[in-house]
Amino acid sequence: MLLHLSTWTEVEAYLVSSTGIILPIGSTEQHGPTGLIGTDAICAEAIARGVGESISAIVGPTINVGMALHHTAFPGTISLRPSTMIQVIQEYITCLAKAGFTKFFFINGHGGNIATLKAAFAETYAHLADLNLPNAHLVKCQVGNWFMCGSVYKLAKELYGDQEGSHATPSEVAVTQYVYPEAIKQAPLAAEVGSGYKIYGAADFRVRYPDGRMGSNPALATPEHGKQFYELAVKELSNGYLEFLNAE
Amino acid sequence: MLLHLSTWTEVEAYLVSSTGIILPIGSTEQHGPTGLIGTDAICAEAIARGVGESISAIVGPTINVGMALHHTAFPGTISLRPSTMIQVIQEYITCLAKAGFTKFFFINGHGGNIATLKAAFAETYAHLADLNLPNAHLVKCQVGNWFMCGSVYKLAKELYGDQEGSHATPSEVAVTQYVYPEAIKQAPLAAEVGSGYKIYGAADFRVRYPDGRMGSNPALATPEHGKQFYELAVKELSNGYLEFLNAE
Amino acid sequence: MLLHLSTWTEVEAYLVSSTGIILPIGSTEQHGPTGLIGTDAICAEAIARGVGESISAIVGPTINVGMALHHTAFPGTISLRPSTMIQVIQEYITCLAKAGFTKFFFINGHGGNIATLKAAFAETYAHLADLNLPNAHLVKCQVGNWFMCGSVYKLAKELYGDQEGSHATPSEVAVTQYVYPEAIKQAPLAAEVGSGYKIYGAADFRVRYPDGRMGSNPALATPEHGKQFYELAVKELSNGYLEFLNAE
Amino acid sequence: MLLHLSTWTEVEAYLVSSTGIILPIGSTEQHGPTGLIGTDAICAEAIARGVGESISAIVGPTINVGMALHHTAFPGTISLRPSTMIQVIQEYITCLAKAGFTKFFFINGHGGNIATLKAAFAETYAHLADLNLPNAHLVKCQVGNWFMCGSVYKLAKELYGDQEGSHATPSEVAVTQYVYPEAIKQAPLAAEVGSGYKIYGAADFRVRYPDGRMGSNPALATPEHGKQFYELAVKELSNGYLEFLNAE
Amino acid sequence: MLLHLSTWTEVEAYLVSSTGIILPIGSTEQHGPTGLIGTDAICAEAIARGVGESISAIVGPTINVGMALHHTAFPGTISLRPSTMIQVIQEYITCLAKAGFTKFFFINGHGGNIATLKAAFAETYAHLADLNLPNAHLVKCQVGNWFMCGSVYKLAKELYGDQEGSHATPSEVAVTQYVYPEAIKQAPLAAEVGSGYKIYGAADFRVRYPDGRMGSNPALATPEHGKQFYELAVKELSNGYLEFLNAE
Amino acid sequence: MLLHLSTWTEVEAYLVSSTGIILPIGSTEQHGPTGLIGTDAICAEAIARGVGESISAIVGPTINVGMALHHTAFPGTISLRPSTMIQVIQEYITCLAKAGFTKFFFINGHGGNIATLKAAFAETYAHLADLNLPNAHLVKCQVGNWFMCGSVYKLAKELYGDQEGSHATPSEVAVTQYVYPEAIKQAPLAAEVGSGYKIYGAADFRVRYPDGRMGSNPALATPEHGKQFYELAVKELSNGYLEFLNAE
Repeated sequence: MLLHLSTWTEVEAYLVSSTGIILPIGSTEQHGPTGLIGTDAICAEAIARGVGESISAIVGPTINVGMALHHTAFPGTISLRPSTMIQVIQEYITCLAKAGFTKFFFINGHGGNIATLKAAFAETYAHLADLNLPNAHLVKCQVGNWFMCGSVYKLAKELYGDQEGSHATPSEVAVTQYVYPEAIKQAPLAAEVGSGYKIYGAADFRVRYPDGRMGSNPALATPEHGKQFYELAVKELSNGYLEFLNAE
Repeated sequence: MLLHLSTWTEVEAYLVSSTGIILPIGSTEQHGPTGLIGTDAICAEAIARGVGESISAIVGPTINVGMALHHTAFPGTISLRPSTMIQVIQEYITCLAKAGFTKFFFINGHGGNIATLKAAFAETYAHLADLNLPNAHLVKCQVGNWFMCGSVYKLAKELYGDQEGSHATPSEVAVTQYVYPEAIKQAPLAAEVGSGYKIYGAADFRVRYPDGRMGSNPALATPEHGKQFYELAVKELSNGYLEFLNAE
Repeated sequence: MLLHLSTWTEVEAYLVSSTGIILPIGSTEQHGPTGLIGTDAICAEAIARGVGESISAIVGPTINVGMALHHTAFPGTISLRPSTMIQVIQEYITCLAKAGFTKFFFINGHGGNIATLKAAFAETYAHLADLNLPNAHLVKCQVGNWFMCGSVYKLAKELYGDQEGSHATPSEVAVTQYVYPEAIKQAPLAAEVGSGYKIYGAADFRVRYPDGRMGSNPALATPEHGKQFYELAVKELSNGYLEFLNAE
Repeated sequence: MLLHLSTWTEVEAYLVSSTGIILPIGSTEQHGPTGLIGTDAICAEAIARGVGESISAIVGPTINVGMALHHTAFPGTISLRPSTMIQVIQEYITCLAKAGFTKFFFINGHGGNIATLKAAFAETYAHLADLNLPNAHLVKCQVGNWFMCGSVYKLAKELYGDQEGSHATPSEVAVTQYVYPEAIKQAPLAAEVGSGYKIYGAADFRVRYPDGRMGSNPALATPEHGKQFYELAVKELSNGYLEFLNAE
Repeated sequence: MLLHLSTWTEVEAYLVSSTGIILPIGSTEQHGPTGLIGTDAICAEAIARGVGESISAIVGPTINVGMALHHTAFPGTISLRPSTMIQVIQEYITCLAKAGFTKFFFINGHGGNIATLKAAFAETYAHLADLNLPNAHLVKCQVGNWFMCGSVYKLAKELYGDQEGSHATPSEVAVTQYVYPEAIKQAPLAAEVGSGYKIYGAADFRVRYPDGRMGSNPALATPEHGKQFYELAVKELSNGYLEFLNAE
Repeated sequence: MLLHLSTWTEVEAYLVSSTGIILPIGSTEQHGPTGLIGTDAICAEAIARGVGESISAIVGPTINVGMALHHTAFPGTISLRPSTMIQVIQEYITCLAKAGFTKFFFINGHGGNIATLKAAFAETYAHLADLNLPNAHLVKCQVGNWFMCGSVYKLAKELYGDQEGSHATPSEVAVTQYVYPEAIKQAPLAAEVGSGYKIYGAADFRVRYPDGRMGSNPALATPEHGKQFYELAVKELSNGYLEFLNAE
């Protein structure tokens, strides 16, 4: 059940049986010469919808711009500052909590969002308590990172070994190829790829990782791999969501 | 050309010939008993993509949550506060302006966004000047409201007369039916519908407009109408974008 | 009844019979070579006081600095950023709402304030609800733009036709001449005047509108015209205020 | 020379010979049963204009709402939060500094503004340096509190002794009587008046100072006294401004 | 009793008999060629702990970075902006007030903090009222500036006369020598020292006060003096705290 | 070398040979019935000073209040909201970066700070770039969590096995016992201790972890263990700092 394809009366009915919601969150950022700028949002959205279908949970609108300041030296990247993203996340949750939702499961496609999401959750719990919402003490948020699912990680290692890298990875590119086969890109990839540098500011990042990839070889990706990753992530995160929902 | 389906090198290439970008913006808010919560984002996104295709312009990620505070007494609505939305819009534009974009054309699906968008543009121009960006003085933003296109307005009057109303209108519902025929909703609509009240806070809004419609009869909508609206809006906004782009 | 010339006990007494208040809002911004920098505040204040007298409503302190970022390339202009102005408006309303006021009628002298005022109202309604004020749901705000009164508009067209323009207009200059006859300015006005350009950033504005006028010929203004405009606006806005106050 | 009665070209001309400006700042707050809510703004404005005339300095728009949170339990009081007021002051100064002003002399009518003004100055100096304004290092701000002028203080002691008190004082009431003789108020004043309590929150303030006066007997005020105070303050602050302006 | 050396159960027990707390606040800023960068925090902390011991009050963590923007042209200085410091102070007080504390006594070692602290208190009282805390109306904050104690001031005059100056004073340096005898610094001090200039921005400050001292001769300081100052301040502020605590 | 025990001229000299600085950051939060409220700050400060001594690095003032919102249902806890902490961290780094520091090594004693610190670093890099600081691109920040050092973790497992738990751990309590042997606390500890629950809001936390411990048995701690942990952490983090400093 997709929130944006539902009516408010359907949401009202849904809330009778469940107060959980899935919120896909990605990023709009460079993913190397062949990766789509929307990769993280595309993966998060597709997998979140798969999860929503498999377990009849409602899926909110995709947050397609996240915390990608370190990628902003590449054109096409859009990022919120962390403190803005905290505010945005807080306002999403506050609106939904006032309507009765209490369990917020963010299916996340971007490692760079994790720290800010956690900070946002902490800030939001305190905010809801300050608002004296009757259900404030019941609100719980969790991040499910599809790319950190055990099954996904294992398959990526099997298929790509070290060439999985950590950004513009073949696994995430594969998922986008599966979702948007019409947008598979070809471009020459330098044999040498930046790897192992820590992430600091945007200018430094571009020096270390001149084509945007971080130790990855996305040329290994195929749509078939993408399907496999998708299915593994949907399965594992569906279980994760149910556990979260059912936790006392 | 969709930003999220492009690579950063494609964006770099695009910027050589054009520094314009289209940004769809909608809302996630109740649209009466039969209107989709995502109506405004769906319409803006579909029309923006149509415009992008027709004139080879790049289309950014859809901003699917906007300023809908007055709808927040209905479950499923998500809204930013205006000052948060100003910050968000400013950060989108700032990232893109640093990359070289200068003409920002927001295709908007929600009347409630207009005031805040205008405020955001003013704040952003000043912010960019303060940052001493070399192209700060060239940055220009414009809102294109598809539902206020002359041709759209005319057709809505012809088809629906006064039953067009001003929220959860048959014209916007028709566009969503055209885009998502699988999500056409049926529900009884009260014969009487709230109409003509000014908009104040969320609690007051729900009292005035108990089922969420504002003077509209969305039961008149058909997917075929939607196609007509879509095509008129795409045509008119394509011209609007080109004029904006080419203005000295 | 002017708030600043009243005591708190008089305000307390006033609140027994009415919870409405008029707040004049203008701007401190260039108005061409002969228009006063305080034009918008002067007009709003004078007309608001006229309205207050005619219908025995209390009139608050004039907000004489508004949203004029696009005029800041001309010396003497002072502007708030929109997000600051939202905060300011919210704090005014919150203080007064806590004291019992519920109907806030802003008599506005500056087109550039409108979007930010509307954003501020939306943000304030939500803020008051979050504060759990007992009268939060009753708070209503409205903008009355004196220069957009039907009767004013009609007279301006009759007197000036196209030379009314849209900034540093003869009509607003006339009102200031009526209010401050000692401050009528003479200066040569270029025969050619910028006109029809959209408003973007401050630097661009000054290029388009080099002497600050927007298509207007303020040399046509006279104090007698000003008196007429003043009286029309007072009459129309007095009715507007009463309607607003009496609306269910 | 009053900014609001000047044109931008007059301001431009003024800046050739002086980069100083006087900004009156008051408050909109209860002043006991007979004191005007606008007392602090009225005094600051009148005295600032007197100073401006006597030494040909430009006088900006009166900031008539300041930091009066502790008075907000009395109806009619309007206050900014300190952090909002800091932002407002910063934006005033920034606009004017960009236009070339460097010496900002705030003529202040309200003790409660002093701390926040000082905080605002510090924040603004740092902000201007961050903006890389060419004249940032020249910007200097000063507060001139008319009620703390030595000559004013001496006269108040002579005329009223201990009955001067510290809020709703006969001296400030006298100045308002001189400026607005038509708004002299009569009301019974309790023989006992709260005195000597420290200022904490608004609710506590109202308990300590039930009619709003702080140890004062404003019944002693006369318009003639007001004239004397006005003249003393204008003289002393004119000297203060010139010293400030001429300091190396 | 030091908060950081206590357990939460000890704090719970303390609250049964007292709801007062002492919060030391200093600064991290240059103090001339021989003064420690931590001078203000060191003095405030040592004296606060002395007060805490002498009267069995709990002492919170030292706020060792305050408002020192005007010193930031000297390396080693760290400052918060006033609006950030207001937020920080508000969050400290809010956490503690929710736990039951109501009397907040800030023992302050830095003149530059005073204005911002006062602004913070005003903002916090209003914030707590908005949160509807049951004890909001009881919360009271006070600043005790050790260097402004009558007894301290008198001794400084006796020992140093005019060479006390107003920053990097021998009295504060003496206290740090008493607390940290191992960190007594020797450095040549120019015979001439900047004096009497007002404080504006950081760049201006460094021009006026090239070695960081303001009219002071810290070479006069001795650890023995420091002990005397310490004891006088502890005694006077202990009384001050008790008065504050016991005030009705 | 401790910043607070240095003069600005010593800092200036230090910057000639190194632009690195160590910043200890802890928290002020409950640590169970026997753990000190200052545990995280005490450990971070002691270890940071040990590191500073061992490798002649400068150590800044301890940030002793961090992000501990989830502990705020226990008296004595003080927390910043994440967005406030981001601002604070940004202002520390900005002041120091303007003075020439480029490598910021935060020695952290609290797991709850990590997400917000990372968010703060990202926001700060972007902020410094926006300020156009000449060394903005060189600024790099890193967190060194003493409790996550491999050697520390190994020893904790050896000494305490599962009773190490994850909050109010015997290892951190041991370090505080080593640093403050005079503040070793005795209190009965329930045999059963909350364990394995995720962290959400403060009220929920207190329900799950009624005495504040998370699966730990701090009764196992001894000052001798503390010395061992201290030495291991100092050694490992000294190496970590040098690597960070020397990284290209």
